[in-house]
Parts: sequence; structure tokens; C-alpha cells
Amino acid sequence: MKKIILLLLMVLLGGSGIAQTGRAPNIIVFLVDDMGWMDTSVPFADSIMPLNQRYHTPNMKRLAAEGVKFTNAYAQPVCTPSRTSMLTGMNAARTRVTNWTSPNKNVDSDVSDDQFAALSWNRNGLSSVPGIVHTVYATPFPQLLKDAGYYTIQVGKAHWGAAGTPGANPYNLGFMVNIAGHAGGHPQSYLSEQHYGNMPGKAQLQAVPDLEEYYDTHTFLTEALTREALKALERPIRRGEPFYLNMCQYAVHTPIMADPRFVQRYYNAGLDSVEAAYASLVEGMDKSLGDIMDYLQSKRVAGNTIIIFMSDNGGLDHHQRGGLFNTHNYPLRSGKGAVYEGGIREPMIVKWPGVTRGGTTNPAPVMIEDFFPSILEMAKVGAGRIIQQIDGRSFVPILKTAQRTVVARPLIFHYPNKWIHIHKDEEAKLGINYYTAMRYGHWKLIYRMRTQEFELYDLSKDLQETQNLAETNKDQLKKLALIFGKTLKERSAQMPVEKLTGKPVPFPDEKVQ
Amino acid sequence: MKKIILLLLMVLLGGSGIAQTGRAPNIIVFLVDDMGWMDTSVPFADSIMPLNQRYHTPNMKRLAAEGVKFTNAYAQPVCTPSRTSMLTGMNAARTRVTNWTSPNKNVDSDVSDDQFAALSWNRNGLSSVPGIVHTVYATPFPQLLKDAGYYTIQVGKAHWGAAGTPGANPYNLGFMVNIAGHAGGHPQSYLSEQHYGNMPGKAQLQAVPDLEEYYDTHTFLTEALTREALKALERPIRRGEPFYLNMCQYAVHTPIMADPRFVQRYYNAGLDSVEAAYASLVEGMDKSLGDIMDYLQSKRVAGNTIIIFMSDNGGLDHHQRGGLFNTHNYPLRSGKGAVYEGGIREPMIVKWPGVTRGGTTNPAPVMIEDFFPSILEMAKVGAGRIIQQIDGRSFVPILKTAQRTVVARPLIFHYPNKWIHIHKDEEAKLGINYYTAMRYGHWKLIYRMRTQEFELYDLSKDLQETQNLAETNKDQLKKLALIFGKTLKERSAQMPVEKLTGKPVPFPDEKVQ
Repeated sequence: MKKIILLLLMVLLGGSGIAQTGRAPNIIVFLVDDMGWMDTSVPFADSIMPLNQRYHTPNMKRLAAEGVKFTNAYAQPVCTPSRTSMLTGMNAARTRVTNWTSPNKNVDSDVSDDQFAALSWNRNGLSSVPGIVHTVYATPFPQLLKDAGYYTIQVGKAHWGAAGTPGANPYNLGFMVNIAGHAGGHPQSYLSEQHYGNMPGKAQLQAVPDLEEYYDTHTFLTEALTREALKALERPIRRGEPFYLNMCQYAVHTPIMADPRFVQRYYNAGLDSVEAAYASLVEGMDKSLGDIMDYLQSKRVAGNTIIIFMSDNGGLDHHQRGGLFNTHNYPLRSGKGAVYEGGIREPMIVKWPGVTRGGTTNPAPVMIEDFFPSILEMAKVGAGRIIQQIDGRSFVPILKTAQRTVVARPLIFHYPNKWIHIHKDEEAKLGINYYTAMRYGHWKLIYRMRTQEFELYDLSKDLQETQNLAETNKDQLKKLALIFGKTLKERSAQMPVEKLTGKPVPFPDEKVQ
Repeated sequence: MKKIILLLLMVLLGGSGIAQTGRAPNIIVFLVDDMGWMDTSVPFADSIMPLNQRYHTPNMKRLAAEGVKFTNAYAQPVCTPSRTSMLTGMNAARTRVTNWTSPNKNVDSDVSDDQFAALSWNRNGLSSVPGIVHTVYATPFPQLLKDAGYYTIQVGKAHWGAAGTPGANPYNLGFMVNIAGHAGGHPQSYLSEQHYGNMPGKAQLQAVPDLEEYYDTHTFLTEALTREALKALERPIRRGEPFYLNMCQYAVHTPIMADPRFVQRYYNAGLDSVEAAYASLVEGMDKSLGDIMDYLQSKRVAGNTIIIFMSDNGGLDHHQRGGLFNTHNYPLRSGKGAVYEGGIREPMIVKWPGVTRGGTTNPAPVMIEDFFPSILEMAKVGAGRIIQQIDGRSFVPILKTAQRTVVARPLIFHYPNKWIHIHKDEEAKLGINYYTAMRYGHWKLIYRMRTQEFELYDLSKDLQETQNLAETNKDQLKKLALIFGKTLKERSAQMPVEKLTGKPVPFPDEKVQ
């Protein structure tokens, strides 16, 4: 009789794998766009900073109180590289998706430069199909989750591939539902009154798709996406299927437009109109997080749902922001586009009911490519059939034990591209354009490819990266440069090519030998 | 022990209903846009007509050879009314969605008229949410299928509601996947080189969403939609879940653009460029049908998949077509927009493996609202929780027995709206603007609301509707007018209101008493 039951079970479960037995946890990645480490009332530094008092993110606080806060979490300096790393587990040096991708196929978003030739990077982004020009061919983890029986949902910004390539469409990356995700990397408008950009004759490639129902309803984009996400969750929850929700708010990316529900508070606090609008985008994003948490509770699935909060690069600290320059990620230096901490350090929180202890902090350095192996481990889904080599490491083993010593490993921020036109002195001050950097333990080694110069910082003492130790600690520099160069070469990293000589910039290890 | 097995079954099946046990058939509705009764090489008339020789639809032939051909199948004269009836089971007189809906909320697509005031019809279309202005509130059958465990997929034209209302989004109508469906009723372009309309600054509300991956790949819209449909089918097939696919090709609606894969044949046949392009749209649509049938076979699910082929109104016989006027649906009179047969009679084929006998013909009058109860019966899903009153009748009982006598019932084509600006004499010739009509048995009663005049045709002898019997067969006219008026009133049909008097046009029964 046991045999019959077993047989029955097998027939009913079919080839659907473990996920359909009900034991698999639901997983939500709540990924914010362009949000800085300091754009929150949750302190990620050792003390409460002025910016923590400026922003209001009560739901992030709630999540942190229920989970673990990673204070040394990283992404790449701009969005597509981070998003591609997250989906593939590969570091950006390996994907060669090292800059943001244009929505137009084959268009190089790099700005032209006097010194360096155009780079043959993967400007069309990620592809799950082989043979697509200028793409990295890899298996995204949502595909593996889907194959294992997860109901996989993409909401909001996708930006994994250029229009005209498979990666433009989240359906090709393992998502069963896609709402408002496409080749565009920011919204044309946050306003329903402007149809999120879809006005006849005015629509650009950044006009947000799929949200017709909200046109002229005074629903801010952030809210519309939240509502769509909850709607999409209804079905797997009702059926008891495990789900993966990739919740990618377009906020807080430019255009910085006031979220009318929250902006008044920031005018009252004396912020200029741009900064007030920015803060309102942050608070609107936080409400979205809270609404999702409330929904999970109301549906009684919060206890079996993992939430991972993350941003895809540092806060914008440049044109289009208000306020004083180089203050937007204070105490971190610089912002989006930079290899300084302001460009790469991220607010990350993980809540796994029954696993993480609420209100804990974990200082272990982790990185966006770690999401791939971590999420697969959480879902107990093997990565046997994938194509690519994984650089990420699962952070699941350190979720429970916050103080556990972590063996140092190289975290690589590789940007052999040119993001914006600024003066070369300005580049040096900001750590923007043609930079590569490595965090290793508490050390940070920066290599400016334009001048082949090093900077060395001890982050345990100098979070602000003001004390360059490159001249005074040459032994450490050499040791790190060897690891750095070796790692870059292992990952087939691209280096910029000098126009004058036609030769690539030497790898860091070659400069110290 | 039996109890344990039963318990196990109940736990595993949860609230998912019968659909997940694997016995439920897959269902595909292949709905073409603006395709006429004669736009096919499958003869739906008693003999092979010249247009059957013009068009090439080998896959429709194949489907007809494997299924049953309904030769007296009907829809409304324009698209949104038909599509809304299909999804809700309600006749257009009852939905009050009697004209095509503008993609713009609250915008009346009716043309202004000297005689009649603007009609307060449901110009925003269908809504599954109550309280939305100018919509019909109803439960669409895909919602019921989804609730019962079906994996529900919408591909292509949706056009159920205006932007700014819930019905604009197929996710609100019970679909779990939506590809390229929105508030728009036709494609801005069929060409990938024009990004299906999504060119920066040029995009109109008819720009087709979701197909970024095909931009500049020389993939005609019809083909892109087919590929997306097959991709969406992969998942339920692999998991053994029953699926419902609502396959709505934008073809063969205007803009009439040549499908380059097929157009040469029609140039060679001597057609003018517009008619050649039109024929190529038809053949491209037919290839889509064939590709889906091939796919089902390759996945070994063809034997458990019902296919229903249908169009949403008659073929266009007016501006934007080439060739000679009033020939496009020959031998039927007039075309899209009209209550004459050319505007409402549809090519319909049903294949249900194990139920329908291949190559059979069924002359029973059936109508687009019959899809609702028929599909629910096929899926063995009850309609217990629906809001609306159903006018449709299931055609499942007559799928097997082609020759079975069918009790006459009123089929209503209600159009108290104004579609286009044409001269009133022209209106009378074409049966366009302010017409309502009823088919009852082999009789057709037409009521021109502008003049309150009747036309009566015996379709069994006069398919072309050239012999008006209104004067010579007054008894029959009276009998039918009473049924007609009673039915319209039961369904709360709207009648146009005279500007001069402020009074609505009398119902047909009131004119014969």
C-alpha cells in the first residue's frame, strides 16, 4: 500500500521537482534602482548619519528589525552590469557587460574618448540564447527556479538586454510573468497623467509598457508597480506554488520627479525641490516594500517568504541632483559610476523567517553576483545545467552566524568604459571612467587605467577613502595587485586599448612586477 | 488506507479543482481580427467561391479536415463588442459595448450625427472590477479557467478596455501571461524595422508593446506573436498543466502591410498592391495557425488540445481596401461595420480530438457569446460565481452530431452607434450605422433605426440579402419583430435618441403592434 501512495505521489508531482511539494520558500528580491547606501533611515554605517535622518524608510527599518543587515554589500558602479551579475552569478569582468546598455541594439553607450579606442564590450547585454552579437550567453537563475516549479515574476525595470535581442524580454530569462520590464533603463515619466511616457508622438524608448490601466488615475509609477506585483502574487499563493518575485522599482532613478504622496514632508524640512523630490521617491519605494510585507502577512505566507533588499549601484552624486556635490552618499566618497564606495556600496537586508535573527548586522563583504548561488541554495535548486562559470558565493552559510570570520576573497569592480564627459581631473576626484577596483578583506585597491596609477585604502580605518596608502604601503599594494591582476585575467576581463599604440592597458599585476 | 489516499489527494490537489488532475483538455481560441468569411481557401459557402481560390490558407484546411466547420457562425459587426461578448458570454445588446473602444478613456469612438444624440454606451469596454465608469462589469471566462487551475495566456490584440481602466490590462481579465495585448485595437506597424510602432517620438497608442526582442530582426508581427505564444506554451506543457491560449493575431486588421514572406504569390496572381498585401496578411495568419498545430504535435499534446478558430467581425469592405467595392466578402453583402452577412458571418472551425469528426460541417447558427459557456463546458468548469447573465449557449452538444436539428433562437446584432461618416443612402446600401438585426432560424430581420424601416431576408434562399420580403411577408415580419423587440428589451438594449424629440427610437416590436 505504501507503494501505491508513493506511486500516487510521483504521478501527481510529475516532473516538477521539489518546489511543488510545498517545502520550498518563496523568495522576493526587492531591487531598487540607483539607491545609495545612505538613502534610508536604516543606518548602514556604524552610527546614525545625517542622511539617515533626512530619509524616511520605516519599512526598511521593519525589514531590518526582522532580518539581517549586510553593511559591506556591493554592486557594480552602474546598473546593467549589476543586474546581469545578479541574474547570472558572474562578475562584470567576466560578463563583459561593464556599462549600462542602450535600449538600441548594437549602440555603444560609452562616451567617446581621446585616449582610448571604443571597447568591444557586451553592449547588447545578457542573452539566454547563444550566438547573439555583443551579448553574454548565460543561464539566468529565474530559469532554473522556473524549471524547478517556481512561479517566476518580473515587475518593473528589467534592462538586461537591448531591443532586438532576446534579453530585452524577461520571458526569455526565465520569467513567467513580466510587468513593465523591457530594454529601457529608466522610466520616461513616473506620472500616470503622462501615461508613464506613452503619449502619442512623444513616447521614447523609455516609455514604461504594460500599465495602461493606470493612465490618468493619479497613480504614481511606484504604486502602480506595487499593485501589479501583488496581483501577480495572488495566483501562486492561492495555489500553494512557491514563487520568485523580482521586484524592481524604477525608483529612485532619474527623472527625479516628486511622488506627490510624500514630497511635502521634505519641502517642510527645507530641502530644495530636486532633493525633496528625490526623498519622496525614496519614501514611495519604501511604501512599496511595506505594502508587499503587509500583503504577505495578510495572505499568511510571510513566514515562508524570504525577502532580500538591494540596490543596483550607488546613489547619484552628479548632474540632475540638487544640493551640494559629493554629499549624496556621505560619509562615502563619490556616487554612481564610481569605484569609490559611494558608487558601489549598497543597502542590503535579508530576512529569512526561521533562519535569520531579527535586528542583526553582518559585516561580511558580499556582492551582487552572490545572489545567484544564494537564491538557488535557498530554493534547494541545483545549478547543474548552467553554461557559465559562477563568481558569486552563497551567503546562506553566513545568514545565521553574523560574527563568523569570512575568508577574504577578491570583490571586483571593473569599469573599462567611459560613463560621462568630465574633465580628467574631475575623473580622478570622483573615481569615474576607466577604473577598476578590488576589495579584499578590509583593503581596497583602485587602479586608474587612464594613468596606470594605484590607490590603496584601508576601509577599516578610512571608510571615506581619503588616505591613499599606495606610496606608504608598497608591500601590501604589490600583494594585492598580484591577486587583482590574476583575478581579472582569470575572468577574461577587458582592458581599454590606447588609441596611440593599439595596445591594451597592462593588468594591475604587470605594473608591480 | 483508502482514506489516506483520499486525504493525500485532497492535500496535494488543494483547492485547485479538477483541472490539475490532467484530465482537462487544453483549449486554444485562435481569433483573427477583421477576417471575412471568404478570406480563406476553406469554402464556408455551399460551393467553392472565387475568393476561396484567391486566398491560401492550407492550415485552416488542415484544421477543417480534422474538425468541424461551422458555416453559420456569427459575431458583431466590429471588434470590441465581439471580443467582450466572447469573454463574458453576454450579447452586445446587454454589454452595451456596441462599438469599438477608443484606447483613450471616456472617449466616444462614435462619429457625430445630425439626427441622433451621443449615446451613453460602455465606451470604456469591459471591467472585472465594479464601479468603473462606462464599462460593463462581468467575470471573464479566463478568470474562471485560471481559478480552476488552467494556465491562461493572452497573446496579441486584447482591446477589451480603454487605457486608464482595469480592462486595458489582460492581467485583470484572468490571464496569467500577456504578450502584446493592451488598449489598442490595431498595430501601429507590422514591421520589426519600425519596432511595431515604437519609434521614439512617433509612437501612437497603437504601438505594439512587449516585442523588443524582435526589433530590427525582420520578423513580421504575425510571426513574432506566434513565437511568443509557443514560448508561453512551453511551461504548462512541461508541467502537465492544462492551458488556455487566447491567440489573437493583429492580422488581418489595417494597416494593410505586406507580409514579405508571402506577398509575391499575390502580385504574380495580378492583385493590386493593397489586395496582395491583404492576402499576404491572411496567409501569414494561416502560417501562425499551422505553426501552433505543428508545435502541439511535436510536444505530443495535440490529442488533448481543442482548437477553436474564429474571427471577430466581417472582412473590411470599405476605405483602405483595394479592388472593387462590395466584392470583398462575395457572395455576402457588405462587410465590417454592417449587419448584413458580410459584416457578421465568420469562418469558424472547432477541433476537439475524440469528440469532433474530421471534415464535417455544421450549419447550426452559433455566435461569439456561445464561446463562454462552450469553453467552460469543455473545461468542465462551473460558472457559479459569475456576475453577469449569459446570453450564449454552449455548442458542445452539437459538436458531435452535425445534422441534429437546432431549436431556433434569436441571434442579435445590435449597433445603435455610428461607425463612419458616409452618406445616408450609402448607409442603407451597406447596412452600416444605427442598425440592429436578428437572425432567427433561416430568417434575418433588419431594423434600420434611422428610418425605423424593416428588411426581411430568407437566408436559406437568399444568402446575398437582395430580396427584401418585408412588404410581401408581413406575418413573418410581425412575428419576428415581436421576438426581436422582446429580446432587445430583456437585454436592456440601448436605442439611439433623436436629437429633435429627445426620445429613443421605438423597439422593433413597437413598430408592428
